[in-house]
Amino acid sequence: MNQFDNLKEVQIASEEIYDGVILHVCKDTVTLPNGKTARRELIRHVGAVGIVPLTDDGKVIVERQYRYPLDMVITEIPAGKLDSKNEDRLEAAKRELREETGITADEWIEMGVYYPAAAYTDEKITLYLAKGLHFGEQQLDEDEFLNIEAVPLETLVEEVLSGKITDGKTQVAILKADKII
Amino acid sequence: MNQFDNLKEVQIASEEIYDGVILHVCKDTVTLPNGKTARRELIRHVGAVGIVPLTDDGKVIVERQYRYPLDMVITEIPAGKLDSKNEDRLEAAKRELREETGITADEWIEMGVYYPAAAYTDEKITLYLAKGLHFGEQQLDEDEFLNIEAVPLETLVEEVLSGKITDGKTQVAILKADKII
Repeated sequence: MNQFDNLKEVQIASEEIYDGVILHVCKDTVTLPNGKTARRELIRHVGAVGIVPLTDDGKVIVERQYRYPLDMVITEIPAGKLDSKNEDRLEAAKRELREETGITADEWIEMGVYYPAAAYTDEKITLYLAKGLHFGEQQLDEDEFLNIEAVPLETLVEEVLSGKITDGKTQVAILKADKII
Repeated sequence: MNQFDNLKEVQIASEEIYDGVILHVCKDTVTLPNGKTARRELIRHVGAVGIVPLTDDGKVIVERQYRYPLDMVITEIPAGKLDSKNEDRLEAAKRELREETGITADEWIEMGVYYPAAAYTDEKITLYLAKGLHFGEQQLDEDEFLNIEAVPLETLVEEVLSGKITDGKTQVAILKADKII
């Protein structure tokens, strides 16, 4: 017996509640470890990537972006969704970085996986550190608005620790990048 | 003019798509900075807390919990939802820690806010470090299943950096706790 067999749930039904542009909401029925039945509400997500683009003089290119659910402009690393579930994640990271910031990079280092909210979404974000940067033209969608800024990595680390940076993937990516480089 | 006025979106309509037990899904209409109209899909969430319970000998009490959206048992810090939007967050943290692990603590240190997925949810998790622990009886719900374990903080830091720990709030909380203590 696996040491976690006492925890596992088994799907017995799945109902689609909403099939939106970004959000795909399901209500599933599962069997619990004690044999009883329970409901599970969840968001199915295509997956995403996030990138820490680090300049030769130790600055990170970050975005200031308005986030409607929070009604706030927050500081984030460049990030974006996969085009499809099976898209190569490194290729997606290169595309998102180029589109949002105009940057291409010589060196890509994978920094692991970030699950934002395991209780209710299967979204998986793979994080990358990008070095050897070349700067070009942004290619934003017509309806995409964000400001780009270069901030010293050590300043961003301080802002994560002081609570000024609140975006989860950015907190993880900045603290990991600081440990790796 | 505020430096971020070029980024803000203004709500002009909100439609409830699904009012579930955990997930409350809305489809809103907004005016973009360029005057055009766009749709925003989002999850409204009551809010949550997460706790790093640290023993006198440098171990953290963590949970191994099956997460249905990921079909995986993952390592997480104790955490839970607020009972209501206006519940005091520190009180909620004390309640969740007691219920899930049986632990009460003499000292509570706030470690800032974690937004798991600012693109599509307003969920806000406040993180705490709890010290001076007293161990009692777990009070799990009948249908709640999780294993508790005491793991050295330094081991958890290594597991975040190596990619073994993938839960976002746990990654942030462990790396922050390591910097603070």
